[in-house]
Amino acid sequence: MAKSSAKPAKKAPRKTVTDATDKHTLKCLGDEAREVYEASIKDGKPELSSPVRTLGNVKFDPKVGYLEIGRQKKVRTLTVNTVKSFAQTLRMMSLSKEMIEEDTFATKREAYYVSKNWGEAKFNEQPESDMVMDDIEAMFAMSGVSREQLRFYPEEHGGAVAGRLTVIDHDPVSGSPLRIDCTKFGTGAYTIPHSVEHLEFDTDAKFVLAIETGGMFQRLQAHGYWESANCILVSMSGVPTRATRRFIRRLADARKIPVYAFVDCDPYGISNIYRTLKAGSGNTAHLNRFFCVPHATYLGVTPQDILDYELPTHPLLDVDVKRAKDALKNDPFFKHHKPWAKAMEMLISMGVRAEQQALAKWGLNYVIEEYLPQKLKKTAGFLP
Amino acid sequence: MAKSSAKPAKKAPRKTVTDATDKHTLKCLGDEAREVYEASIKDGKPELSSPVRTLGNVKFDPKVGYLEIGRQKKVRTLTVNTVKSFAQTLRMMSLSKEMIEEDTFATKREAYYVSKNWGEAKFNEQPESDMVMDDIEAMFAMSGVSREQLRFYPEEHGGAVAGRLTVIDHDPVSGSPLRIDCTKFGTGAYTIPHSVEHLEFDTDAKFVLAIETGGMFQRLQAHGYWESANCILVSMSGVPTRATRRFIRRLADARKIPVYAFVDCDPYGISNIYRTLKAGSGNTAHLNRFFCVPHATYLGVTPQDILDYELPTHPLLDVDVKRAKDALKNDPFFKHHKPWAKAMEMLISMGVRAEQQALAKWGLNYVIEEYLPQKLKKTAGFLP
Repeated sequence: MAKSSAKPAKKAPRKTVTDATDKHTLKCLGDEAREVYEASIKDGKPELSSPVRTLGNVKFDPKVGYLEIGRQKKVRTLTVNTVKSFAQTLRMMSLSKEMIEEDTFATKREAYYVSKNWGEAKFNEQPESDMVMDDIEAMFAMSGVSREQLRFYPEEHGGAVAGRLTVIDHDPVSGSPLRIDCTKFGTGAYTIPHSVEHLEFDTDAKFVLAIETGGMFQRLQAHGYWESANCILVSMSGVPTRATRRFIRRLADARKIPVYAFVDCDPYGISNIYRTLKAGSGNTAHLNRFFCVPHATYLGVTPQDILDYELPTHPLLDVDVKRAKDALKNDPFFKHHKPWAKAMEMLISMGVRAEQQALAKWGLNYVIEEYLPQKLKKTAGFLP
Repeated sequence: MAKSSAKPAKKAPRKTVTDATDKHTLKCLGDEAREVYEASIKDGKPELSSPVRTLGNVKFDPKVGYLEIGRQKKVRTLTVNTVKSFAQTLRMMSLSKEMIEEDTFATKREAYYVSKNWGEAKFNEQPESDMVMDDIEAMFAMSGVSREQLRFYPEEHGGAVAGRLTVIDHDPVSGSPLRIDCTKFGTGAYTIPHSVEHLEFDTDAKFVLAIETGGMFQRLQAHGYWESANCILVSMSGVPTRATRRFIRRLADARKIPVYAFVDCDPYGISNIYRTLKAGSGNTAHLNRFFCVPHATYLGVTPQDILDYELPTHPLLDVDVKRAKDALKNDPFFKHHKPWAKAMEMLISMGVRAEQQALAKWGLNYVIEEYLPQKLKKTAGFLP
């Protein structure tokens, strides 16, 4: 019974694309496709090129402030051996074009399933389609087009937000504008959507506090910290998702407000969570221009805080020490920022780590009543 | 400099507890403490008892609809050997009382750090304090008091919500009431808070759709599915957190609306995600009365859907087959619900699994235009 009706859905009517970003994306897709087409007609040797995505092709210019992709390119020429992946890349670009025209999107997983109707060009396993999508993403990143603009959305949503911020969005169906007041969610919060390119912001907050753990976010929010400190709280829940990083970046750029990170004092919190937020990561260097927050600074917990606040600690594990030493030796971010190199060396020699919630030793709300106010008096001294 | 000021924060002034739930919790804490005190005075052998938390002490009564804890009790008597954990249990109960009086809360981790100022009774490692907290939770669950009511909150927040629902909360600082309209989040969503006991609900929705993946939630939300289907969308992001389960349960109880689960068709989606949502889990049987949604039913993806909708599949892994066979053999839920036993056997014999996003094979929005409307015409036939 259901089977007879299990046929492909009617395609949505083609809409006129009016959004400037969408128009730019369509133009980039069209230009690339046209080049391939014209080369096919002329000499039958069309090419697709995208930047090489290895650590060897990454550079760090302090004036830029994030890990950038270098100039090395991987060029794929259409041959008997590359014909399948070449065709798949073009089909994936074509899917992107259709999604923009129909105002929809696909997760990586959905894009893989869509390919099941591509005949010979279908993907057999999702890692194959992921790789093609990564290639396309890198290819178009060179023209300032992000994966989200191509309408390939991440599976995971963004973090939670509370505080003195109004997010300006639109109703997804009617298109009518919506003002979302993040002071009005009580004990709950606003969830950052999977793609944030279309959002605008209204705020008079003095800073954004990017918080590692859900537990700390909840404490600051439940006690109205954003109100007394006139700020915006964002929960990262570990390494921030793409949507969370892009949200903070766009918000900070649009409103010119500082971003302070509040994470655990351990090599993971510092070199993975904070460094990823601020400078991006090496193996996604082609994306960092969209996703990192170069002017973020580090409120704490610092190695010095462990001493100053007599925090309970745990010993550093071997993996922590290895991570810290690797960062000092190989990571351009730590090589450039001397205060960070010093702090990391201090942490290694102390041999311990401390969590942000360790401040609870002095009382559950000590963080609100003492720690944060003390730190915020000295923002100029924050680690870079 | 910071060091001199790194002293314990002043305690918040004791407030008068007016909330009925808080009063009940304080009474339960007081009664338990008084018994211990009086036994100490009388014969010096105070006892603390809590239910045994093993699968052997779990029962399933179909009329109740969830896995219940049995009658076996673990009794701890104060002796030289138990004095430390006895004292820690009482300190933890005392912390709970203080938090209610001061209207705050602690995560498991924070409670561990607070103990660092308990002198001899301090915990050396967090697993010790977690175990004491679990004991207290089980002890008071018998009186209908949940861990959240004791003010021990989970670290992770709840899922995302969008649709025809107004959540009634209050401003955490001023206490003034707030109405949060979940149709007004644009492409974003409402984040369920860590504790939901105080929330009330206003809705005319016909059902709650509990969705496994963030990607599917996003699709339904971005295309206004909740509007056309007059429903509430909840993203579970895998196995739902405590807060998400409790939110769905309280919402469904308060407004008497059906809950339909929409998850991947594999032994994990069925026996972990869905079964946990509906009937709770065996090793937390003392909590299921709070956290499960006994009247939830299973919209899909069913093993029959894989055939009816010709879905792309992946082979079942050995671990999937083992999980399914275990469920059939040992899980009272599957032993009781014959249609589920049949569906699980069918899945094993088909030897494949399918994800909810596999419907994208027929078009990205096929799920909205065809699949869900077809399924919702036959809710009486949903798996129990």
